[in-house]
Amino acid sequence: MEEKYNQSVIEATVREVLKQMAPHQKITLKEAKRLTEAVEQESARRGQQSVIAVCNPEGNPVLVHVMDGAFLVSFDVAVKKAYTAVAVKMSTMELAKLSQPGETFYGLEQMDNGRICILGGGVPLKVGEKIIGGLAVSGGTGEEDDSLAIYGQSVLKEIL
Amino acid sequence: MEEKYNQSVIEATVREVLKQMAPHQKITLKEAKRLTEAVEQESARRGQQSVIAVCNPEGNPVLVHVMDGAFLVSFDVAVKKAYTAVAVKMSTMELAKLSQPGETFYGLEQMDNGRICILGGGVPLKVGEKIIGGLAVSGGTGEEDDSLAIYGQSVLKEIL
Amino acid sequence: MEEKYNQSVIEATVREVLKQMAPHQKITLKEAKRLTEAVEQESARRGQQSVIAVCNPEGNPVLVHVMDGAFLVSFDVAVKKAYTAVAVKMSTMELAKLSQPGETFYGLEQMDNGRICILGGGVPLKVGEKIIGGLAVSGGTGEEDDSLAIYGQSVLKEIL
Amino acid sequence: MEEKYNQSVIEATVREVLKQMAPHQKITLKEAKRLTEAVEQESARRGQQSVIAVCNPEGNPVLVHVMDGAFLVSFDVAVKKAYTAVAVKMSTMELAKLSQPGETFYGLEQMDNGRICILGGGVPLKVGEKIIGGLAVSGGTGEEDDSLAIYGQSVLKEIL
Repeated sequence: MEEKYNQSVIEATVREVLKQMAPHQKITLKEAKRLTEAVEQESARRGQQSVIAVCNPEGNPVLVHVMDGAFLVSFDVAVKKAYTAVAVKMSTMELAKLSQPGETFYGLEQMDNGRICILGGGVPLKVGEKIIGGLAVSGGTGEEDDSLAIYGQSVLKEIL
Repeated sequence: MEEKYNQSVIEATVREVLKQMAPHQKITLKEAKRLTEAVEQESARRGQQSVIAVCNPEGNPVLVHVMDGAFLVSFDVAVKKAYTAVAVKMSTMELAKLSQPGETFYGLEQMDNGRICILGGGVPLKVGEKIIGGLAVSGGTGEEDDSLAIYGQSVLKEIL
Repeated sequence: MEEKYNQSVIEATVREVLKQMAPHQKITLKEAKRLTEAVEQESARRGQQSVIAVCNPEGNPVLVHVMDGAFLVSFDVAVKKAYTAVAVKMSTMELAKLSQPGETFYGLEQMDNGRICILGGGVPLKVGEKIIGGLAVSGGTGEEDDSLAIYGQSVLKEIL
Repeated sequence: MEEKYNQSVIEATVREVLKQMAPHQKITLKEAKRLTEAVEQESARRGQQSVIAVCNPEGNPVLVHVMDGAFLVSFDVAVKKAYTAVAVKMSTMELAKLSQPGETFYGLEQMDNGRICILGGGVPLKVGEKIIGGLAVSGGTGEEDDSLAIYGQSVLKEIL
């Protein structure tokens, strides 16, 4: 069919290929807003006032939202959890385990000029194997924050 | 034999004595580049993206290379592992063991204005008994990094 | 020929065009090594012992070389000049002028947790309008360092 | 006499010449004590209670003496002045001038993780052109401290 190869079809194909090749090199602010909105709603539903932070794959912040009533300490903590998740390419909950005395990363939280956080709640955001950013929640226990961050990961696909 | 004492023979002798007296006071940038090249190739062969850092015997940095895709945290970690190895005159892997709770150097990583790193992967570079610098690898577990740094030590002789 | 225009051919063509369009999103370690080699040689030719630093477009370091005899202070200065050049998207020489008392960015060097440097010698590396990294030289006056960094910019095209 | 020129005699001669050529790569603690003693006596004679610090050519401290009644702040200041003098290879008094607004090193005191001091009183210690360490005095005005440090430089030759 001739029509199959007209310009608009080729353009659509190109867009599709582009998406496949590099669909999300870095999370955008627009995407970060939508992701954070979803995490905020879930946090409120669970009765937790959180700070939510999103950074890009190089660790630079994209967005921070402080829910009314959140802990003062959580702004700094959330920004650093998001950074840490991309800086070590694992969740801060996993890192927390590997940073205990006797474990292979014991002492890591002293490095990188105070930017490393080993409290649960920071996770890498991935498309396939590619890290496109980091998401962090601070407002509850390490386990509660980790659970909300994992919730964020789970809705990422719908957001993008 | 007269010839034995002509100028070029004396010069050669002097050069030899000089080598024996002060063979490698400090690693040079040129030597650091060659050593790092070898460690980078071995790191790539093992499928690890590393940061490699070399410092002189006084702990001041000489070279840092960040392999594409290495952990963000690894730049600071590698620089500090190299410093630490010369600062305490042992590998950071050995120091890691001595810095666990209950051990003799527990708390040492809090000293020296944040420059001490107790993660494996930093080693002193020696010629005979003399420390001529420090080498550090960051990109894997403490054990993986330590193994690559020891590889670096093993090829030092060929590099100098 | 019908076959010429089927989807897989179009896809392959698009991939090729894309590669040509965006060849250097970020400077690689390999490219940074070659660029630094050129700047080192020019620095030596001018009789200056420099520290040369390269970072990626997000400000994270890629390479630092300390020429034998360089100022101790220059390691930190070079790393921060490279960061600053991409962080503010201008040369640190331009920023230096804008950061004097009474000027619009006076006080900026106090920000960003000590990572901003307002000494000349840091420049953005661009391909077209796109910043692919930062280059910094530290070892002389602001003017001498700036001149060497501009030399680095001038040879970038040959290096890539 | 043939014997005069055999290898062991040449070697011994070379060692002796070398010793004379490079007698003081780095200031030793023994030398630092004698130099500091002289500066302390001169400081007392001038009615000033000083902290006197000596570092090696790589900026690492060798000795710090706190005269009774010296300013509390002077311990840190003296250590950093000595470091700075070798880190920039000039006196901190000269650096102070070059670090004023509009000058080429304006902003330098923000670098190097707080180790740079732009108060007068730190000087490099040289043998010929070679820097063998740094000496700093803190206890008076920049001019008074600089003057005492210069006194220290002037007696260095007798001390070594």
